[in-house]
Amino acid sequence: MFTVAPARTLAPATHRSPRNGVSIALFGLGHVGSAVAGLALEPPRAARWPFRITGALVRDVHRPRPTGNAVARTSAGDSLLDPAPDVIVEALGGLEPARTLVLKAIERRIPVVTANKSLLAVHGDEVFAAAAATGTPLRYEAAVLAGVPFLGTFARRRIAASFPSFCGVVNGTTNFILTEMAASRSYSEALADAQRRGFAEPDPSNDVLGIDAAQKLAILIRHFAQCSVRADAIEATGIAGLWARDLHHAAAFGGAIKPVVAAAWDGVEVTAFAGPAFVPSSHALARIDGVQNAILLRGAPGGDLLFAGPGAGPLPTAATILDDVVEAIEDVETRTMDGGIPDVRAARPEAPVTGWFIRLTGAALAAGPDISGLLGAHGVRLRRASEEEVHDGRTAQWLTAYPCERRRLETALCALGAATGCDAFCVRELT
Amino acid sequence: MFTVAPARTLAPATHRSPRNGVSIALFGLGHVGSAVAGLALEPPRAARWPFRITGALVRDVHRPRPTGNAVARTSAGDSLLDPAPDVIVEALGGLEPARTLVLKAIERRIPVVTANKSLLAVHGDEVFAAAAATGTPLRYEAAVLAGVPFLGTFARRRIAASFPSFCGVVNGTTNFILTEMAASRSYSEALADAQRRGFAEPDPSNDVLGIDAAQKLAILIRHFAQCSVRADAIEATGIAGLWARDLHHAAAFGGAIKPVVAAAWDGVEVTAFAGPAFVPSSHALARIDGVQNAILLRGAPGGDLLFAGPGAGPLPTAATILDDVVEAIEDVETRTMDGGIPDVRAARPEAPVTGWFIRLTGAALAAGPDISGLLGAHGVRLRRASEEEVHDGRTAQWLTAYPCERRRLETALCALGAATGCDAFCVRELT
Repeated sequence: MFTVAPARTLAPATHRSPRNGVSIALFGLGHVGSAVAGLALEPPRAARWPFRITGALVRDVHRPRPTGNAVARTSAGDSLLDPAPDVIVEALGGLEPARTLVLKAIERRIPVVTANKSLLAVHGDEVFAAAAATGTPLRYEAAVLAGVPFLGTFARRRIAASFPSFCGVVNGTTNFILTEMAASRSYSEALADAQRRGFAEPDPSNDVLGIDAAQKLAILIRHFAQCSVRADAIEATGIAGLWARDLHHAAAFGGAIKPVVAAAWDGVEVTAFAGPAFVPSSHALARIDGVQNAILLRGAPGGDLLFAGPGAGPLPTAATILDDVVEAIEDVETRTMDGGIPDVRAARPEAPVTGWFIRLTGAALAAGPDISGLLGAHGVRLRRASEEEVHDGRTAQWLTAYPCERRRLETALCALGAATGCDAFCVRELT
Repeated sequence: MFTVAPARTLAPATHRSPRNGVSIALFGLGHVGSAVAGLALEPPRAARWPFRITGALVRDVHRPRPTGNAVARTSAGDSLLDPAPDVIVEALGGLEPARTLVLKAIERRIPVVTANKSLLAVHGDEVFAAAAATGTPLRYEAAVLAGVPFLGTFARRRIAASFPSFCGVVNGTTNFILTEMAASRSYSEALADAQRRGFAEPDPSNDVLGIDAAQKLAILIRHFAQCSVRADAIEATGIAGLWARDLHHAAAFGGAIKPVVAAAWDGVEVTAFAGPAFVPSSHALARIDGVQNAILLRGAPGGDLLFAGPGAGPLPTAATILDDVVEAIEDVETRTMDGGIPDVRAARPEAPVTGWFIRLTGAALAAGPDISGLLGAHGVRLRRASEEEVHDGRTAQWLTAYPCERRRLETALCALGAATGCDAFCVRELT
C-alpha cells in the first residue's frame, strides 16, 4: 500500500547559515558558467543569500572572459575543492573531467549542482549512487527544461509524481527548426537560421540526431519511473530527413510535427522514444512553438499537468542553477533530488506501439498502386491519405496509419517498396 | 544588491520521522475532506509515509459519509488538537470556524495545510503572522490551481520567483462556461450544464461574480509580490453579462474571452484585475479551455513560464493537500510557504491601463452615428469594429479600443450613450 523510505546513512546535518554568502566553486566558464557567475555577482533582490564565487575551473586561464577578473580562474580543478566550498556548480558539459570532479566533490560531501545531461544520462548510476551513499545533495533542475522548475517539485511531492507516463518537447533547437519548416522553409534554411541566432551549435549533430533529446529522456525516466535506462538504448530519430512539405501535410491532417520525447511505464516495462512525431492539434504539445520547451505529465491523481517555458539559454539555465544552489544548502536532509529513492532498477526501454505519419515517394505512385491493400496484407491499416504531388520528378503522397509496431510497419513498407519501387519515410504519431 | 533573510524565532527543529504514519486531524469531511481521507487511507505506492487520520471535525456526526466508519467523527474541533496530530488539514472552507481552529493549531505549533481561499484572502495577515511568529509550517498549494504544484516551488526558488507580473485562468467554472459559450451556447445553458456536471455550485455567485478569482488573485499577489491586498479592493467583474455573440466576435477579432486574473508590481504600485477579458489567440491563456486552469509567470530571469492543469475537483485537491502534508513535516526549518519573507507590505491594488473589448447596443446604431469621433473626443481610440447585427430588435456592434484607463473609457461611453442612446458592455483586453 505504501513504501516507507528506508533509513540511509546521512551526512551530519550541518545546516549552513551562510552569513558571508554561499561560496560556489564554478567548474566551467563558458556560456552557462559565465552567466552563473554574472547572476551570482548581481543576483535579483529576492535572492535569499549573497553568493560568492571561490574560483572557476577553465582550460585556458589567460583567455579573456565576460566576467573579467571578477572571478579567479584556475586550470587545477582539485584546488577548488580544498578548502571546501558550500556548493560546486558543474558547468563544463561533456563526460570528463566533469565526472571525475563531480565524484570527488560528492566523496567530500560537497553539494553538487549540474545541468550536464550527458553526465547524468551516461554516468547517472555511478553519480547518483555516490550521492546517495554519502548523503550529498545532487541537483540537476537545469538538465531538462532548463528554465522551468519541475523536477525538484515532483521529487518532493510523491503523490503528484505517481503518474504512469509523460511526453514533452525538450529540445529547443529542433523545435525552432520544425516550427520554421511549418512556415515552408527548408530544413537547411531553418538550421542555418537557428545557427545564426545561436539556437544551434556550429556542429548541430547532438540536437538534430536526437541524442540530446534521448539523454534528457533517460534523465526523466530515472526521475519519474525510477528506472535506469541507457540513453543509447532508446529509439531516437533525427529531424534531418524531414521536408517542409511533411509539415504542410501534417497541418492538413490536423496536426503538427514536433520533436518529442515520450515514455510510459508500469511495474514491468518501460516504453520510450525520442524523435519527430505527428502531434494532433488538440494535443497540448502541438502548440509549443519555436525554442519553447514543455512537458506534459499524464494520468497523475490530480490530472494531466503541463509545464512550459524556456528549455535552454545561458540566463534561464543560470537562474535555475543558482536556485538549485540555495535548495542544495537548505536541504538539511541532504536528499538527492531523485527523492532519495534507492530502488532505481535497470530497464531496457521498449519501443511503443503508435500510429504513424508516412511519406511515400516513387515514380510508380502516379500509376495508383493499391497501397492500402499492399500494406493491409501486412497488418498495417491506413487512416488518411493526401492527394499526390510531384517533387523533383518523383510523385509523393502522405498517409497516416493506425497504431502498430515499428517492425510490422517496416516489413509492410519494405514489401510495398519491393512491389512498387517507392521509398518511405515515417515518423510516429503522439496521442 | 541582495536581501539577507533576518533570523526568526523558530520552533525547536523537532524533525518528525513518522514511523507509525503521519497523523492527520481532518477539519471538514465534505467533498474535499472525504477525498483527503480516501486518498490518505489508500495512497499511491509512491507515498513516502503511511497516513493516519486521527479524526474528522464535522457539523453532524450522524450523517453518513463516503468514508463510512473508517474515519472517527467529532463535532468538537478542539478535541482533535489534543493530543497534537502531526498536521492538521483544514478542509472546512469559509471563514469560521476555520480561522479560529487554524489559529489554535498554529499557536500549538501544529503544521497546517489548507486549501481555503477565503480564509487566506480575508484573514491572511493574521494567519501568516501567527505562523511566522511561531515558526509553524502553513501550506496552501491547493488554494490556487488546486492540482498544479507551483506555489511551494517558487517559495523555495527565489531567483525564478523574481518576476514582475503574472496572469492566469484560476476559475474552472467560469472557464467552462465561457468555453461552452464560445461554441454558441447561451450563458444560462452553459451555467446549467456546469451545475449538472458538478463544476458549478447550486449557488454559483462566488464563481460567476468573480469573488473566487479575486480571492485567489489576492493570495497570488501576497505570494509573488509580497504585498497584502484586500480581495474586495481588487477590480473584479463577473461573467453573467456576456453573450454568446461576444465570444463569437472575440474569435472574429482573433482571440477569445477568458476569465482571467492579472497582476503586475514594482516597488511602488500593484495593479490587478479579475474578470472576463479579451485574450489574443497568440497568448498562452487563449488556449486554456474547459475546466482547465493555468498561470503564466512573466518576465522571470528564465523567461515566461506556463503551468497548466486541473484547478479544482476533490481528487486533485486531495492529492495536493497530502503532498503538502508531507512537505510540511519534512520542512525542518518550518518555513511557512511564503518563503518566510517577513516584509509583506500592505498595498492598494490599482486598476491597470489596458485595451478594451466593447459591445454597443441601441436603436440609433443602425443610423451610423460617428462612434469613432464621439469616443475619440474623450481620448478613446478605436482599433477594430465589427459589422452591425440585429438582436431582439436592437442593433449591436463590437469594437476594440487601444489601452486607456477605465475611468476614461467609462466617461467616453457615457457621453456616447447620452448622444446616441446606446448601451455599452465592455471587458478588458489581456496582452
